Amino acid sequence: MHDCIFCKIVVGEIPSEKVYEDETTVAFLDISPVTKGHVLVVTKKHFKDFLETPVEELEKCVKTIKKIAPKLMVALETDGFNIGLNNGEASGQVVKHLHFHIIPRHDNDSLRMWEGQAYQENEMKDYGDKIRKFTIEL
Amino acid sequence: MHDCIFCKIVVGEIPSEKVYEDETTVAFLDISPVTKGHVLVVTKKHFKDFLETPVEELEKCVKTIKKIAPKLMVALETDGFNIGLNNGEASGQVVKHLHFHIIPRHDNDSLRMWEGQAYQENEMKDYGDKIRKFTIEL
Repeated sequence: MHDCIFCKIVVGEIPSEKVYEDETTVAFLDISPVTKGHVLVVTKKHFKDFLETPVEELEKCVKTIKKIAPKLMVALETDGFNIGLNNGEASGQVVKHLHFHIIPRHDNDSLRMWEGQAYQENEMKDYGDKIRKFTIEL
Repeated sequence: MHDCIFCKIVVGEIPSEKVYEDETTVAFLDISPVTKGHVLVVTKKHFKDFLETPVEELEKCVKTIKKIAPKLMVALETDGFNIGLNNGEASGQVVKHLHFHIIPRHDNDSLRMWEGQAYQENEMKDYGDKIRKFTIEL
């Protein structure tokens, strides 16, 4: 896509630290890493977000993450990793080209991704009901 | 697996707000949601984490997320969502049974998942080199 920075990285028009490439996906370092070695996995084809991406293309990304993640653990001597995907601006998605994040983690790196909260009484069931109205048809 | 809380949820030994189920996956509400309506997608079979889960089972989870996420958007009138997976205690993984998080998001909900940092000069290339030593064989 004409103005997409990730499309330009895919074809090499914009330089990047690529760490993996196959027929359908590319992996390269995030220039603004949550932790050092933070990798993005993208489809070569342009899709705006998770919702717009065909499931076959998502599966290819998962295959790539599955290949890369254990190598990251060894290469960076990490203890774990987070996989993340943001869909929509509300979620923090900045570049509108499908990408998964792989964020290397170390024990006691003091990073906390998120905080859980509590449901009020019956509220959880209400949310379940709301959602099931739409998932019942699946 | 004998002592796994998610295995017990899968078979109904522990109650949960299930919102979707098929032959290989189950989706239910997280009891400690980051945002209300936060859903977990798990494999029915027990796998400790992402690294231990066969890619076919991961793909089934992705298919389930792909089905559920748009329904969540409609049901909860949200503007986006985050998908997350934590691998290993260092990453914040609590229950040792593979699970993906789907976290509904609203515009201006003031939640910030993570913060990027900057690489020092040449540091990004060094990280790329470190990782490529191991990904070159893929």
